[in-house]
Amino acid sequence: MTKGRLEAFSDGVVAIIITIMVLELKVPHGEDLESLRPLAPVFLAYVLSFLYVGIYWNNHHHLFQVVHVIDGRVLWANLGLLFSLSLFPFGTAWLGETGFASLPLATYGVILLAAALAYYVLVRTLLRIQPAEARLAEAIGPDTKGRISPLIYVLGVAVAFVAPWISFALYSVVALLWVVPDRRIERTLVR
Amino acid sequence: MTKGRLEAFSDGVVAIIITIMVLELKVPHGEDLESLRPLAPVFLAYVLSFLYVGIYWNNHHHLFQVVHVIDGRVLWANLGLLFSLSLFPFGTAWLGETGFASLPLATYGVILLAAALAYYVLVRTLLRIQPAEARLAEAIGPDTKGRISPLIYVLGVAVAFVAPWISFALYSVVALLWVVPDRRIERTLVR
Amino acid sequence: MTKGRLEAFSDGVVAIIITIMVLELKVPHGEDLESLRPLAPVFLAYVLSFLYVGIYWNNHHHLFQVVHVIDGRVLWANLGLLFSLSLFPFGTAWLGETGFASLPLATYGVILLAAALAYYVLVRTLLRIQPAEARLAEAIGPDTKGRISPLIYVLGVAVAFVAPWISFALYSVVALLWVVPDRRIERTLVR
Amino acid sequence: MTKGRLEAFSDGVVAIIITIMVLELKVPHGEDLESLRPLAPVFLAYVLSFLYVGIYWNNHHHLFQVVHVIDGRVLWANLGLLFSLSLFPFGTAWLGETGFASLPLATYGVILLAAALAYYVLVRTLLRIQPAEARLAEAIGPDTKGRISPLIYVLGVAVAFVAPWISFALYSVVALLWVVPDRRIERTLVR
Repeated sequence: MTKGRLEAFSDGVVAIIITIMVLELKVPHGEDLESLRPLAPVFLAYVLSFLYVGIYWNNHHHLFQVVHVIDGRVLWANLGLLFSLSLFPFGTAWLGETGFASLPLATYGVILLAAALAYYVLVRTLLRIQPAEARLAEAIGPDTKGRISPLIYVLGVAVAFVAPWISFALYSVVALLWVVPDRRIERTLVR
Repeated sequence: MTKGRLEAFSDGVVAIIITIMVLELKVPHGEDLESLRPLAPVFLAYVLSFLYVGIYWNNHHHLFQVVHVIDGRVLWANLGLLFSLSLFPFGTAWLGETGFASLPLATYGVILLAAALAYYVLVRTLLRIQPAEARLAEAIGPDTKGRISPLIYVLGVAVAFVAPWISFALYSVVALLWVVPDRRIERTLVR
Repeated sequence: MTKGRLEAFSDGVVAIIITIMVLELKVPHGEDLESLRPLAPVFLAYVLSFLYVGIYWNNHHHLFQVVHVIDGRVLWANLGLLFSLSLFPFGTAWLGETGFASLPLATYGVILLAAALAYYVLVRTLLRIQPAEARLAEAIGPDTKGRISPLIYVLGVAVAFVAPWISFALYSVVALLWVVPDRRIERTLVR
Repeated sequence: MTKGRLEAFSDGVVAIIITIMVLELKVPHGEDLESLRPLAPVFLAYVLSFLYVGIYWNNHHHLFQVVHVIDGRVLWANLGLLFSLSLFPFGTAWLGETGFASLPLATYGVILLAAALAYYVLVRTLLRIQPAEARLAEAIGPDTKGRISPLIYVLGVAVAFVAPWISFALYSVVALLWVVPDRRIERTLVR
């Protein structure tokens, strides 16, 4: 089974997710600066989610650079990732409209956790059937970032009810951590 | 005629269908748990439809793995399938907003039937022109699942007016039945 | 310049156009048959437009089967076609919501005319630079359907203000005429 | 790292951006000519933005014709461009709904500037790693258009508060300037 359509379908779904989030930036009713102000948190939430969805797309891209065999289970593991990513527009809109309230921040953290878990399952499902399993495993390496991120998400969920902006800061820090592309796989590929 | 663009176009349409369904998960007006509650049936309907659309994409993917020749009739049979799938967002939203009322459940069953019929027509249209028709037919096999599913949909439509939740259970059982990828075609491909 | 991305981009735009039209099928507020009734004209308009956009996609597909060279002008001619197709969701929604009133029917005819003109310009722009121009011209042939359709659209626009349903019937007849795939090009390809 | 998925993903995002802008063309409540009138500025804004997004897609297409190597930084530079393009639907809708008011016109100019800057960063990021850097640089040439456009955008932003329609005229002139495809790269490719 070739990976071409899985990649194309994933690209399509992620492209739509990343783009419909911007629909939350609703046109202000006025035409002065004052009418733009309520959009500030909505825009901030959009930027954060654009980064996260971009990160997942980049990592998906990197991952499938070194993957050559897929099967029916991989299709479903991949759909699991796309499902969790499809919850971003909801989480983002709720964050933005409530101005980063506690429960929306915690919900956002749960969505981040779901996506991280789904990505982990996808990687495991792929490793199971790769002929050069060793190489992919090596390319992924000890994956420190991948292990720390969920812990910070959990922290963010907990902290959301006490100090919302710390929760937001935690999610942002993880995003920035990942914006650095996954050099480990690139390095392995170059060798 | 090559199948590349048919696959790409189908991937695009299915990607959009699966993603716009999530737009029904409308942002709650409040920011407490209470305001999330009305979303429960909407979310449940989304999960069910995500599974169904995912199943059709997977089966489409499997099917075109063993298909190499297409013609104008196949393009239209495929558009027929995409048309019936495009009714999922409507059916799903109606299910969710009415909390799985009788008529919406029956309508959903009719959409499931339409999609099953359109898929059947697509397979027949493809079989007609495949050089290695025998191989595809063998790959598809006796197709027990494909024959039982429409019967259960019909049952679901009828039962919707008496015991709505049994109707929902029937649709869910069929979905779970199909989440197991179509191993028959995979098996044939491996040989 | 390769045609791959032009095809992929066109597939994407057409896939979105065909899918967002279904968003007009708004969820009824009630849950009985009565609440479905106002959707009948909306659904009918959707079916007609799905056919038309499907026809354009199929013809685009057939056309680019025999095209191998593109240039900057072709990109813009193609964007012209995509622009005119992007007006279908508006035209369709207006048709459906007014129950096929006169001005919406005339507007729909103007959109059909614009799409036909844009497709004609695209074909001419392609013919200009094809090495095997003769073969493409032959594949396209006398193109009787392509010449008659705009005339019927004009008739439909005029008749819309007198007898709306005749206008609708005219548009439908042209659509059915085109659902038969363009066998001329297929025939040439087989030779 | 191959450029195929970057192109496919960009095609998907741009296709969605260009298509959701048309959703602002909301169905009029009446069915006479009078009810169409408020749509005139919305339509005009849509045409302008369709041109701009079309220009970016064409230039992206031309650019990646001569690009063969990408890396993680290119992925992010490209996401930066897609992010700035994703603000077009917002800017366009605000323009249209306010009938080209001053602040919306200035905001639109800022979005144009952001896109121009993001495109510039993408080109630089690509040049850094191309083996045949010289050829790409030559293909891009002195890039007079690329240097003048941002200056006109800045002028448009400033003028928006004094003479809105001059601002609109400036943006339109730049668009028309770019509709002529980038013949420099085409020329180099032909050699």
